[in-house]
Amino acid sequence: MSEWNGTEERVEINGVKVPSELERAAGNGNEQLGRFNRRAVKVEEAQQRVLAAAEGLRCGSELVPLHLSGGRRLAQTMYASSDWPPFARSGLDGYAVRAADVAQASPEQPVTLRVVDSVAAGGLALAAVETGTAVRIMTGAAVPEGADAVVMLEQTAEAILADGSAAVLIKRAGLPGQNIAPQGEEFRLGGALAQPGTLVRPGHIALLGTFGYAVVPVHKRLRVAVFATGSELLPVEASLAPGQIRDSNSCMVAAMVEQSGAVPLICGTLPDEAGAVAAALARVWDEADLIVTTGGVSVGDFDVMSEIFRSIKKGSWTSDQHDLSKVLFDRVAMRPGSPTSAAVINGKLLFALSGNPGACFVGFELFVRPALLRLQGVEEALPRTVTAQLHTSIDKSSPHDRFVRTRLLHQPDGRLLADPLAFSKSSMMASIADADGLAVIPSGSKGAEAGEMIQVILLP
Amino acid sequence: MSEWNGTEERVEINGVKVPSELERAAGNGNEQLGRFNRRAVKVEEAQQRVLAAAEGLRCGSELVPLHLSGGRRLAQTMYASSDWPPFARSGLDGYAVRAADVAQASPEQPVTLRVVDSVAAGGLALAAVETGTAVRIMTGAAVPEGADAVVMLEQTAEAILADGSAAVLIKRAGLPGQNIAPQGEEFRLGGALAQPGTLVRPGHIALLGTFGYAVVPVHKRLRVAVFATGSELLPVEASLAPGQIRDSNSCMVAAMVEQSGAVPLICGTLPDEAGAVAAALARVWDEADLIVTTGGVSVGDFDVMSEIFRSIKKGSWTSDQHDLSKVLFDRVAMRPGSPTSAAVINGKLLFALSGNPGACFVGFELFVRPALLRLQGVEEALPRTVTAQLHTSIDKSSPHDRFVRTRLLHQPDGRLLADPLAFSKSSMMASIADADGLAVIPSGSKGAEAGEMIQVILLP
Repeated sequence: MSEWNGTEERVEINGVKVPSELERAAGNGNEQLGRFNRRAVKVEEAQQRVLAAAEGLRCGSELVPLHLSGGRRLAQTMYASSDWPPFARSGLDGYAVRAADVAQASPEQPVTLRVVDSVAAGGLALAAVETGTAVRIMTGAAVPEGADAVVMLEQTAEAILADGSAAVLIKRAGLPGQNIAPQGEEFRLGGALAQPGTLVRPGHIALLGTFGYAVVPVHKRLRVAVFATGSELLPVEASLAPGQIRDSNSCMVAAMVEQSGAVPLICGTLPDEAGAVAAALARVWDEADLIVTTGGVSVGDFDVMSEIFRSIKKGSWTSDQHDLSKVLFDRVAMRPGSPTSAAVINGKLLFALSGNPGACFVGFELFVRPALLRLQGVEEALPRTVTAQLHTSIDKSSPHDRFVRTRLLHQPDGRLLADPLAFSKSSMMASIADADGLAVIPSGSKGAEAGEMIQVILLP
Repeated sequence: MSEWNGTEERVEINGVKVPSELERAAGNGNEQLGRFNRRAVKVEEAQQRVLAAAEGLRCGSELVPLHLSGGRRLAQTMYASSDWPPFARSGLDGYAVRAADVAQASPEQPVTLRVVDSVAAGGLALAAVETGTAVRIMTGAAVPEGADAVVMLEQTAEAILADGSAAVLIKRAGLPGQNIAPQGEEFRLGGALAQPGTLVRPGHIALLGTFGYAVVPVHKRLRVAVFATGSELLPVEASLAPGQIRDSNSCMVAAMVEQSGAVPLICGTLPDEAGAVAAALARVWDEADLIVTTGGVSVGDFDVMSEIFRSIKKGSWTSDQHDLSKVLFDRVAMRPGSPTSAAVINGKLLFALSGNPGACFVGFELFVRPALLRLQGVEEALPRTVTAQLHTSIDKSSPHDRFVRTRLLHQPDGRLLADPLAFSKSSMMASIADADGLAVIPSGSKGAEAGEMIQVILLP
């Protein structure tokens, strides 16, 4: 891998030639234009471009043991492998009877039935229930032939007949079907249990276990390379030096990647030169399915990701074989995080998020998480939005849609209240930890008034 | 470890003597009484007993790398290790100026300032900003001495003074403080960032990274032994035989344990004899911090967990040294899951959940998850409840509070609607996977009417 050196040499990533003469290096008069002339696309449009790009990149699947499938995404539709219950099943401990026999039973006038057998869960009664007889039955056992009701143990008493054989006193009237789950009541053989893309929750695990799925086909965990830009960023463990701050974004993004069902690869800090960035990306190319960078997307002299995006825009990242590199967007009509950028480079998604923690967080929720979900086959991959009443006015006008970190409060009248967090500038970190949602404040000459109904994106 | 053999021999668990003469083996006249005479406690009372028992058992803590701390629970209060921002910080790329110099600037009448220095993020300007001068500044860099405003790059143009030195045209009026985050704006040195028991989310990781916490003190992952009772249960991978079903509860409970931040140890099926159960529990005693069993809690002949609880009640499980074994409850006034039982055995919590998947699920949410959370230092360990409007009537009367699996729908008017799932008998599994919440229907002669406001427990 050659290093970026500003000469005519070309850096190669997976067969993709990267030219050395970026706009800035070229020093032509269009430089300023190139920097500022980033057309902002609407958030919805940007999201659709991401989902469309992800569509073609669907990740593979693998089989995992059932008990490790929690939190994964199903790769296939799962079907019932039998009726369920697979047989008429007793719902409790008691006696299997013919309802007609006990229709008139009462504490004062109990009905006496001869006990002809006993059946535990997992067993089968040898004797059928005929008129005048009962079978002792445990919770979950198959209801014997002839029986159409189960009387709970607490409504019975043991007895002995004159001939010395076992009997039971039924002290409560019974109805046909009582305490019995009929075969196939819940599922019929071949019925769908869950769709591809479903997040496996404990209830799904119960279902899949019931139907014998000891292993479950789930989407592979995507590997996401996470880079921070800014040679000046200190690692988390470093002491602060004057003017410096630590790279807190990498670990935050890694945690968000994990929340999205993927595996983060924390790759450290990207250098401030485009060539070195290209080389760094190349190094993780085979290992990573998707790349996220933070910082360097603004218009400053050291905004190396902007430089990378300008070069992709110029078509400099096309592969020899086919055109698999393009900028999806390099500016979004949103606040915070307007310089958020996304591209496909040689068939892999690259997201360049803002370096401001709050903007980075919003950019991840709006674009990276949906991409990761869609790659795992999730149909409804965009953030889930609910309606809530705004608690305090957000009165600044804004040319862009705003995403304001907010607490969601459940009111006693069943309504959701959105309480915007005081500090919601893009750099404010306390509010990231405290937020339940992102209040969506549409662009316009005014903000939103207290009492208005607004949309709020739910945060995981 | 001796086996349970029904003789006078005693089984020992960690120094705890278990007598062989259980009620059932004794065959005395109180057997039926012993089985049915389980006093139901209210759910709230049962929960308080669990939390009180957990209080004394708090688990230890450990240090984990920041990037692996997501989803864990903080073991200590975390504090800001510096002011934040640690210095007055530029919010964007542009020029640091004295606001007074540019108070009148406009596109038509730009103000020209001599550029005396340039400061990147992580660097420090060598020159201070004096009247008539500016310093080029990047996002996140420390604002140089003398400057009290930053003008964004887009509102400037580069220029050259008559003497050939660099200058900048400021084309928009500026105000003091603009685009500057003052030192300590968000946090003061020593301010609390998060309390013990806090679930570490991405926002917390950003905070902790900012303040240099490369490792984070979190509560240890509790190890939870999970047993199913019922010798007849088939393992998940087995083919169904007539009358039999598979053990789906173990994997479901394991997934719920993991959701609660603990590590499940799937231990298979418990045998149907109390002595063998005691031996099985003893085998995992040192490895597990808490034990959950499913099934065997009813009043049937093979309900081995009920037998175990009767023996604990009789004081047969007290240790030689101190009385650390007691039944917390062996019946709860709730549906489903009334036979749900909990005990402390020799200082460890034992939960015996119902074998019905739905009842097992409810029992876990109401008692086991709160116990696991309290053990991890969570103050508000009980399930989170919200108010919602009931969509369809639940009209059966019930002597017990009911917990009905339900979907929660966010209405356009900001209200939450609780839509009970059609199949909510305790054995109905489809509704476990589909449920967002458990609608709480208080005991009484009537159920709840459509339109009523009810409480709903939120499911994770």
